[in-house]
Amino acid sequence: MSMSLGIEDVTADRCCAPLSGPLLGEDEAAELSRVFKALADPVRLRLLNMIAAASGGEVCVCDLTGPFDLTGPTISHHLKVLRQAGLITGERRGTWVYYRPVPAALTRLSGLFAAPAPS
Amino acid sequence: MSMSLGIEDVTADRCCAPLSGPLLGEDEAAELSRVFKALADPVRLRLLNMIAAASGGEVCVCDLTGPFDLTGPTISHHLKVLRQAGLITGERRGTWVYYRPVPAALTRLSGLFAAPAPS
Repeated sequence: MSMSLGIEDVTADRCCAPLSGPLLGEDEAAELSRVFKALADPVRLRLLNMIAAASGGEVCVCDLTGPFDLTGPTISHHLKVLRQAGLITGERRGTWVYYRPVPAALTRLSGLFAAPAPS
Repeated sequence: MSMSLGIEDVTADRCCAPLSGPLLGEDEAAELSRVFKALADPVRLRLLNMIAAASGGEVCVCDLTGPFDLTGPTISHHLKVLRQAGLITGERRGTWVYYRPVPAALTRLSGLFAAPAPS
């Protein structure tokens, strides 16, 4: 069962144009700001890091709680914020949910901060 | 006169390791989360975009207020947040302050979201 909440893929509409390039529209700036709000928390950054760095491409939620002095529901809340921002996906298999990064979302952010192409 | 507030260069301590790589320490995650908090606002994203995209490499504050339906002090507040996050620098020359992006800070963020190197 997919844990996707059905929120539109925020990465699809503008892949990878850098901040040094075309000016953002108001709507796009608002949407991007929500992605950065999801990243503006140290626990969520560490969770995304653990998910993005997982060997095998995914990580069981059962392995994400140990490193934090936080309750399961708090970790679940942070994972939900990352999922709603389109940065990770979660899939339930049996007892546990397994999380993966969304490569297109990370690539978009990487491109956003990329240096301008040499002219 | 430099408008730098003397805050340490947050880009120097860990250049460009991706989230898919080594795990962030708590201190580094906390510091990065502050950078993302600075980015978690649509007006600040648009300001950074205008500064990073400026032909000539810098932009006068006098050219940053027009596109927004906001007061000068509000724009100045947002610019201060971006400056404190190490994303831009400001230099006063005569009447106006001129803003530039901090390439190392943007490069670091680009690298943070970069795909893992093929193994």
